[in-house]
Amino acid sequence: MKAIAKYRRRAKQVNSLLCLGLDSRPERLPPQFLQQANPLFAFNQHVIQRTHESICAVKPNIAFYEAAGEAGLRSLRLTMEWLRETQPDLFTICDAKRADIGSTSEAYACAIFNNLGFDAVTLNPWLGRDALEPFLGRDDKACIILCRTSNPGAGEFQDLEAKGRPLWQQVARAVSLRWNDRNNCMLVMGATSPAELAQARQIVGDMPILVPGVGAQGGDVAAVTRAGLDSQGGGLLINAARSILYAPDPAEAARTLRDDINRERPAGTGDATSPQPLP
Amino acid sequence: MKAIAKYRRRAKQVNSLLCLGLDSRPERLPPQFLQQANPLFAFNQHVIQRTHESICAVKPNIAFYEAAGEAGLRSLRLTMEWLRETQPDLFTICDAKRADIGSTSEAYACAIFNNLGFDAVTLNPWLGRDALEPFLGRDDKACIILCRTSNPGAGEFQDLEAKGRPLWQQVARAVSLRWNDRNNCMLVMGATSPAELAQARQIVGDMPILVPGVGAQGGDVAAVTRAGLDSQGGGLLINAARSILYAPDPAEAARTLRDDINRERPAGTGDATSPQPLP
Repeated sequence: MKAIAKYRRRAKQVNSLLCLGLDSRPERLPPQFLQQANPLFAFNQHVIQRTHESICAVKPNIAFYEAAGEAGLRSLRLTMEWLRETQPDLFTICDAKRADIGSTSEAYACAIFNNLGFDAVTLNPWLGRDALEPFLGRDDKACIILCRTSNPGAGEFQDLEAKGRPLWQQVARAVSLRWNDRNNCMLVMGATSPAELAQARQIVGDMPILVPGVGAQGGDVAAVTRAGLDSQGGGLLINAARSILYAPDPAEAARTLRDDINRERPAGTGDATSPQPLP
Repeated sequence: MKAIAKYRRRAKQVNSLLCLGLDSRPERLPPQFLQQANPLFAFNQHVIQRTHESICAVKPNIAFYEAAGEAGLRSLRLTMEWLRETQPDLFTICDAKRADIGSTSEAYACAIFNNLGFDAVTLNPWLGRDALEPFLGRDDKACIILCRTSNPGAGEFQDLEAKGRPLWQQVARAVSLRWNDRNNCMLVMGATSPAELAQARQIVGDMPILVPGVGAQGGDVAAVTRAGLDSQGGGLLINAARSILYAPDPAEAARTLRDDINRERPAGTGDATSPQPLP
């Protein structure tokens, strides 16, 4: 099954547009996990077991596993192997923001798609399409291109005007018009500006959009959902990490956020009170 | 010692502006290395032992180690530990092209600077300065910002005009005028256009410039050197990978390329026939 079809099926199955940012950090783990052989893996299992019914996707940011050295990357690999066995329908995104020239992008695609087995990866557009071809050429996988990010200084280059539009819009147009010939692209649009998210939705039609920055980063869930929904009342992956991972009750935190999102969706597309049963 | 001072001292000591791209790949290793416990580490030792007198820096691209899984990253760590013991003056660059929002860039900086111990890292400018602050704030390390890359389609965004200049020049100006307050920045300029390299040199003054793309990627060494030298006849790190790593005689390949570069330098700054002795 192609990756974007997998995302859409999962979002429908669990009636959720919520993506769990699996940014697990050793220094934030409750003490009982630190005694395990693979603390980050044990913590990931714990959180996913409690939240999987409320989420359409998981998105580990690989930086946090790299920071924990070879043991961290082992935990990421074990998490992916365990997910394929126990949650094969969950859409998996490696948040890696990679981009390099072609032969090097091939090596990254091998690491992320083949070795770790992710369905999707986040990519940086700066080098242009040809550099990303080893990712874009994989029609079984999804390529999620950074467009407008959620950091305070994101506009330094992304908002510069080129050919009469801010550069982030040039990226959205390039991805939509020229990079997506295999129908395997998505965009990243930070949650900090619902107005820009609405403009991106205009540009890319029903292409799915990953929206980081709600929760700890301050994006407004209701405004973001209203601004970003596609013509079918879906097409978003709204990511939250810290506000679920380290909540006193992650299951409750995930359910609440899923319901907050669904409340903004048109009737029939996201009715939080009558979720469709899992298969 | 600060990283850029370390680079300048090393370049002078060995009278070389050559950077060895340590892009070692299991599928290209001669068979005798595959029987070693850590094949990529063994191969790296072999190549560095034969080339170190001709190079100012090594630049492993981390993608190739990631593609080899946890064993690959162990080989990279062992290479760095061995270099610190045996070649502490060699300038070390992690070619990782990272960029993420601040808290995630912190994790990458931890992985690359603290855990692996690199002197420098390559970074992608797309997210703007604030996202890279965990790297830029390290005045003991060097931050090498992608400006104009060497892939055929690099111009898709990098050449778009914004405020009357191609975007890559906006990046060069931002790095030179606003990002370099700790004097720890360098630029990446692909070797495929000496004219653009000369323009970048005009913009950034004597900031060191890393130039990938000679050798297998086709850049002309003599033209690149003439275009990119700083006011002191140095300030370049000209990178070659495959053309040295897999040469029948890597020592000879490195010496030849070092001499080809030095031939273009003003008398007294790079005299290949009378290299300064190692300390």
